[in-house]
Amino acid sequence: MFAGESKAVKPQRYIVEDIMTSGHLWTCRPNDTIDDVLEILVTHRITGLPVVDDNNKVVGVVSDYDLLALDALGKVKDDRALFPEADQTWQAFTEVKTLLAKTGGKEVKDVMTNKPITVRVNTDLDVAAKLLLQKKIHRLPVVDENGSLVGVLSRGNLIKAALAMRKEAAAAVAAS
Amino acid sequence: MFAGESKAVKPQRYIVEDIMTSGHLWTCRPNDTIDDVLEILVTHRITGLPVVDDNNKVVGVVSDYDLLALDALGKVKDDRALFPEADQTWQAFTEVKTLLAKTGGKEVKDVMTNKPITVRVNTDLDVAAKLLLQKKIHRLPVVDENGSLVGVLSRGNLIKAALAMRKEAAAAVAAS
Repeated sequence: MFAGESKAVKPQRYIVEDIMTSGHLWTCRPNDTIDDVLEILVTHRITGLPVVDDNNKVVGVVSDYDLLALDALGKVKDDRALFPEADQTWQAFTEVKTLLAKTGGKEVKDVMTNKPITVRVNTDLDVAAKLLLQKKIHRLPVVDENGSLVGVLSRGNLIKAALAMRKEAAAAVAAS
Repeated sequence: MFAGESKAVKPQRYIVEDIMTSGHLWTCRPNDTIDDVLEILVTHRITGLPVVDDNNKVVGVVSDYDLLALDALGKVKDDRALFPEADQTWQAFTEVKTLLAKTGGKEVKDVMTNKPITVRVNTDLDVAAKLLLQKKIHRLPVVDENGSLVGVLSRGNLIKAALAMRKEAAAAVAAS
């Protein structure tokens, strides 16, 4: 420490660990069905989740976008429509049966983003925030040195932290 | 009705009204502060909301992206940082005071997307879903003939509807 420096003026950097979600994390496996993931997203009001293998290593990320794009953009129009034509549903049960049989077989690995961008617990928060925004993604898996999942950093985490920091700063100003 | 037609085979189309969120909608005004909007997003775990004028006409949309981009991308780096440098916060109260005084004056209209894409209650759901995905947006304000807000169609609504339709179709198949 140099003369004149004190704890109060020590520059403090925020890192990913300060604001990430850790503990229980919603995840799925590459072989989970698309319906399983839809169920998780709807029940927990989230927009996506990391895909991990049996050793908790991150192998992908799957989002509401990936699931909706299945149908609406005609990416795999033939057999994986999320919104089957209404007249198919009500008119032609044979077609619906075929559709469901095929869709039932589709798995997370068919639609997930492979090898997603990840960060570490000690990544600078500024860097992580820039990644989230520049890549227009909503969550970054946080991994350890083995690539195992230890947390998730989401836009929601950033928004919450931004609000807390602003309140904290305002209180400090008011008290000064 | 033509000969041979029955209710069961009448083609049914899904429209925006079938699955949109209506009733109480989270909205903000162009002159609301950025802190107000942050608070709404955090409290209600949403990612954005329509901006309406005094007559409930939709004039914009503001999202977590718009708010975070304030700082992380250095869009308006000078005076509107959401994440003030930690050393600013702890070292230089004068700077923080200046920062907050300026940020406090910033309003939704400074960061919102103007003239957002909107849909109507009777817009085909396929069309609306394509818009959400192709434009990579998360919500579409639903307006009446005067441009007044009557609902919001989000990706969350689509995911929920997709799951419900798939369950319904599966049940119909099981019962047949």
